[in-house]
Amino acid sequence: MSTDLLVPETRVLAVASHVVYGYVGNKMASLVMQLLGCDVAALNTVHFSNHTGYRQFKGTRATAEEITALYEGLTQSNLTDFDVMLSGYAPSAAAVEAVGAIGMDLQRKAEKNPGSFFWVLDPVMGDQGRLYVNDDVVPAYKNIIRHADLILPNQFEAEVLSNTKITSLSTLASAITAIHNTYKIPHVIITSVSLPTLTPNTLTIIGSTTRSDGSARLFRVDVPALDCYFSGTGDMFAALTVARLREAVFTDPDPQLRNTKSWVSPDEVPATELPLARSTVKVLASMHSVLERTLEVRDREMKSGKPVVDGVDGVDGEDSAERKKSEHLRESKAAEVRVVRYGGLLRQPEVEFQATEWRSEDLPV
Amino acid sequence: MSTDLLVPETRVLAVASHVVYGYVGNKMASLVMQLLGCDVAALNTVHFSNHTGYRQFKGTRATAEEITALYEGLTQSNLTDFDVMLSGYAPSAAAVEAVGAIGMDLQRKAEKNPGSFFWVLDPVMGDQGRLYVNDDVVPAYKNIIRHADLILPNQFEAEVLSNTKITSLSTLASAITAIHNTYKIPHVIITSVSLPTLTPNTLTIIGSTTRSDGSARLFRVDVPALDCYFSGTGDMFAALTVARLREAVFTDPDPQLRNTKSWVSPDEVPATELPLARSTVKVLASMHSVLERTLEVRDREMKSGKPVVDGVDGVDGEDSAERKKSEHLRESKAAEVRVVRYGGLLRQPEVEFQATEWRSEDLPV
Repeated sequence: MSTDLLVPETRVLAVASHVVYGYVGNKMASLVMQLLGCDVAALNTVHFSNHTGYRQFKGTRATAEEITALYEGLTQSNLTDFDVMLSGYAPSAAAVEAVGAIGMDLQRKAEKNPGSFFWVLDPVMGDQGRLYVNDDVVPAYKNIIRHADLILPNQFEAEVLSNTKITSLSTLASAITAIHNTYKIPHVIITSVSLPTLTPNTLTIIGSTTRSDGSARLFRVDVPALDCYFSGTGDMFAALTVARLREAVFTDPDPQLRNTKSWVSPDEVPATELPLARSTVKVLASMHSVLERTLEVRDREMKSGKPVVDGVDGVDGEDSAERKKSEHLRESKAAEVRVVRYGGLLRQPEVEFQATEWRSEDLPV
Repeated sequence: MSTDLLVPETRVLAVASHVVYGYVGNKMASLVMQLLGCDVAALNTVHFSNHTGYRQFKGTRATAEEITALYEGLTQSNLTDFDVMLSGYAPSAAAVEAVGAIGMDLQRKAEKNPGSFFWVLDPVMGDQGRLYVNDDVVPAYKNIIRHADLILPNQFEAEVLSNTKITSLSTLASAITAIHNTYKIPHVIITSVSLPTLTPNTLTIIGSTTRSDGSARLFRVDVPALDCYFSGTGDMFAALTVARLREAVFTDPDPQLRNTKSWVSPDEVPATELPLARSTVKVLASMHSVLERTLEVRDREMKSGKPVVDGVDGVDGEDSAERKKSEHLRESKAAEVRVVRYGGLLRQPEVEFQATEWRSEDLPV
């Protein structure tokens, strides 16, 4: 790759889960940021054989003490000059608090140089109306997110954080405004919006950078949905956002923006001109290009050969359950996102998307 | 990157250490293989904050049971279709045995398809005349290396494995022959040879693929030495070798080679035409290009600014020890290999090296 396709040099501390096989958590996020040219320090919060979508896995979780100790190891050797922290899945409320303490310490170290450190937080708690963490993780997140610069909840997590049931575009706008105001978080992206009123077969992403009066400055990007469930796409989105947002800030028409706390653009900057909006369209283009290829490869793989079940050949009761399980494993494996072979597409996507401004006064109630 | 710069699709299981910050062990090896297009499953044997060359670190070691459990996690979900295994540092004799069991299991699974699985083993035990593992790790390695296809000892590790003191080129040749014969290992590379008789300021790498009579088929590559100690270069060498050796076998004039057990070329193939030799010159070219850039960046970094010691300003006794420590930390950080920004150089190095045949009958006694 020629270096002009890389983003500006960016030192990232990425705190998330590790899987031996496949691409989710830090295994996805680190690689994606590295392929864009970021120098990534990877602090792994779990060590699993594979992602939980396979419905079985082995491995261990890091304790809060282990997470803290690894960070102390960095501190004692002066290895904490990070430009960005990306924090994702933490396996307990105590681990969330430990990650929060790391983010706050890095912020404290950078407070004399506004804009020199930025914290992107993915509040991994659940999806589709269901928590997949312990109940005590929710208040732990509510405590730490007020220190983050950008959070990336999905629709369900946005509901949990804002105490707002999202049933329409206007309740979605209220939820984002609540997140800006309750937690003083300057930037929010809702990474997957699912509402009956939206265009079918389309994925809608809504983002906002707050104005000085606390109101939301909303933009929206619609992209074609792909007919497959991929694991790790949230981590991919977050990682691409780290790289592309910093790039957008460093190439912003306003040279002072990078020295502004939390990279919040002045009120007169329209939603579609925000670095967050410019970054998001690039992020989605990269994702779409790579996921489209992944889908092609997956379909080829699923068509080729028969399902592999070691030593199982029958078709009756028990065997049929075994077959179903084996088919699910095969599908999960085939749907692993193809990051490695398509680094070029991450850097130079084949498609282009547009952000549109989205004013809440235009919204149906 | 255009995909034609990538090596053939290769699924690798990489078993080695993980560090949060910097590039050694699996953190180096995984990234290097990924930048060349390999799909890497990373099974981490330790979780440290940084490499031990900093002289301080925090973190934990995986137990043999944890290593085994992660592999069982892969097995139960049919995620073990690896083309290559690369095994590096394991933190105890029991961990070495656990890694050995993984390698043997993968070999067993592939035994009906000769050449479909290849095990590259870096017997990490020590350097410069000194073991840095427990004494019981040595016999553990001696037990498992007989199952490997290629081992990559440094000069000291070659001495330990061959029970041969290497003081000359001819004792070096004897050590390699002993490794071929004692352990039936088809391929060996001694990754750094240091002998008084060799050209100064030159790094010599000696490799061999055995002939059918068990004799060594030796080649030698000399490259200019760089004036800096870099950590992780052994891991970088091993990772590049995984990718480039498989590429060399897949582009070998003999299309049957890839279906031959352990990829051993017929006896009539001269040393310099071996895939191992063709791979090694490419590997060294990539390393030289990236390390040269690393050295430039390091020198710039060391020249800029004063040593950073939080809160220490004096020059007397205790402070001076503190200063020395801080300077060492700063040097270690500056010498971290710049892999991320120079993926292009890994794929397309700027220099070219040559392998020469090296016949032991030509050697001085």
